Amino acid sequence: MNEQKRILPVWREGDAVMILDQRLLPGEVLFRAVQTPDEMIGYIKVLAVRGAPAIGIAGAYGIYLAARHAATPSRMEAAILDAVEHVGNARPTAVNLQWAVNRQLAVFRSVKASLRDQGISDQSAADLIIKALRDSADAILAEDIDLCRRIGQAGAALIQDGATILTHCNAGGLATSGYGTALAPIYVAQESGKRVHVFADETRPLLQGMRLTAWELLHNGVDVTVICDNAAASLMRKGLIDLVIVGADRIAKNGDAANKIGTYSVALAAKAHGIPFYIAAPHSTFDPSIPDGSHIPIEERPAEEVTQWKDCRLAPTSVKVINPAFDVTPASLITGIITESGILRAPYETAIADFLKGKQA
Amino acid sequence: MNEQKRILPVWREGDAVMILDQRLLPGEVLFRAVQTPDEMIGYIKVLAVRGAPAIGIAGAYGIYLAARHAATPSRMEAAILDAVEHVGNARPTAVNLQWAVNRQLAVFRSVKASLRDQGISDQSAADLIIKALRDSADAILAEDIDLCRRIGQAGAALIQDGATILTHCNAGGLATSGYGTALAPIYVAQESGKRVHVFADETRPLLQGMRLTAWELLHNGVDVTVICDNAAASLMRKGLIDLVIVGADRIAKNGDAANKIGTYSVALAAKAHGIPFYIAAPHSTFDPSIPDGSHIPIEERPAEEVTQWKDCRLAPTSVKVINPAFDVTPASLITGIITESGILRAPYETAIADFLKGKQA
Repeated sequence: MNEQKRILPVWREGDAVMILDQRLLPGEVLFRAVQTPDEMIGYIKVLAVRGAPAIGIAGAYGIYLAARHAATPSRMEAAILDAVEHVGNARPTAVNLQWAVNRQLAVFRSVKASLRDQGISDQSAADLIIKALRDSADAILAEDIDLCRRIGQAGAALIQDGATILTHCNAGGLATSGYGTALAPIYVAQESGKRVHVFADETRPLLQGMRLTAWELLHNGVDVTVICDNAAASLMRKGLIDLVIVGADRIAKNGDAANKIGTYSVALAAKAHGIPFYIAAPHSTFDPSIPDGSHIPIEERPAEEVTQWKDCRLAPTSVKVINPAFDVTPASLITGIITESGILRAPYETAIADFLKGKQA
Repeated sequence: MNEQKRILPVWREGDAVMILDQRLLPGEVLFRAVQTPDEMIGYIKVLAVRGAPAIGIAGAYGIYLAARHAATPSRMEAAILDAVEHVGNARPTAVNLQWAVNRQLAVFRSVKASLRDQGISDQSAADLIIKALRDSADAILAEDIDLCRRIGQAGAALIQDGATILTHCNAGGLATSGYGTALAPIYVAQESGKRVHVFADETRPLLQGMRLTAWELLHNGVDVTVICDNAAASLMRKGLIDLVIVGADRIAKNGDAANKIGTYSVALAAKAHGIPFYIAAPHSTFDPSIPDGSHIPIEERPAEEVTQWKDCRLAPTSVKVINPAFDVTPASLITGIITESGILRAPYETAIADFLKGKQA
């Protein structure tokens, strides 16, 4: 994947914050300008922008938009605090979102403190805060690109020439920036001349694997085959999968990892067949404040995501549905966690604590 | 479920062979009259009629239609032999289809032999053959209803009051006649006053669980919740599933069982959580001619079943897809096989051999 071909899910162009509306992929590539934090919350909730690192970046720009659109300098603080709360809670499972808005809040407080008693006008102070939040969001995006590249370099060592890799959902350049997390090792392996084949689980209900991962891999010249989630275990039994790499939305202190619903099933099948199962994630996905996966809030999404596809009703109208968007894979099923600083291995509690030491909060 | 409410997937009304076109469920309940064996082959191939026992019954009526529509009495034998070959091969995995057409072939040969040298006219002989094939198809349907009820009685003992049961695909009254196989124990348990809750895997790609099982259970007053196939393992981990019951399309001599793609994944997850995993099937689903599951032909279905829903294209147009319709669950993951003669348990090779002794070939 070269720089020109890179697809970004969220970015800034001058004063405009842009997103790629992933709901329309692969049929249509539509970019939208986002004007307000409420618009950004809306796009995050409906998954126009999705993927744990990407919604972190979107959240950071949401705080910038809140500052920029505050009615007056005096109302800016209230607008920022309100956005920190509401943008941060737009989706519950991925910790990156709260991580990013809290980082913006820290930037705001720090700039505000530095301006105290300097005698500059309210308007000038407001301009400085807006610029600081904009630069900070830009920095989170730039860091994400760098983190993904480093995850790719760390993970590529796991991929043999000719390997076949299974992935679930989309933890690629559409979920992050640049290389993605789970797909980064694949891109780096391919760049280094290794032949790689990817099986992409379609990933019901919203088909991020079939719609996004397959589209992105094709776009970047990677050999990919789509399967129903249902078929993964059967391919493993036939010896067709060498390695599993998936992303994560939140990783607890003990290494338990939340990711898209169905990941746990893939991990169980990988274990049963002796196939290595890796999680790929940057430090912002770790949540050392919770001891294990049972404390990760699992988002329950609308039943219609399961029972309808566009205008087609798929289920009887009166049927009950439960639609958890994520599940938790226990650390015991995880062969390693690919991070920007290398691959963490069990015992995860110490490996994660060591890894997070010295990372930016 | 009372007799009035029973839904049949295939049946005869006078001279007409009727099917319920399951492609349109749950939106539309459409019955079609089937005129020729070629029409029946078409409906079997596109899954208008589906489910291992049901396509057996459809196949038996297909042979009857071949005899009835033979141009002249002298061409009847060729028409029947041709139909036996082509109807029998309409789908490869479920052994019930070949079992049923071979039973019709045996009926034809037996009647033909009995008429030899009796000096009756060709037309009279033809009429007797047509009647014999019609009666035999009717008998296969009537036996199926009876077998399903007995499977239900045998399996209901496994279901505690208040139990929650997971099933995959549709092995109910739409896949058989009357009670179904996997759903029969649920119907019988409910009739006996036990409270039962069913989780129905949606069953990608064709959503038989969401479209058919949920519809059928609602129709019969059974409490049902639809989930994405992806969510089953996670529900098991939360302790929400007491028991798994699924159907089968072919069971080898050693107990390995082919069923809808994804069944193997469910079986692995059940094993990992210590949840009993049962197959429900009548004797016509067993194939003692093959030593194990590796000999069961697995049907590969069109990519479009995965990449499109009605007019909606879901995947990039150029992406590769593999779409195996079935997988094989090894006998080691199966807690028991619920049959019309009781529950078979490991070691399956002897249990199956004993069960099949004395059954009609």
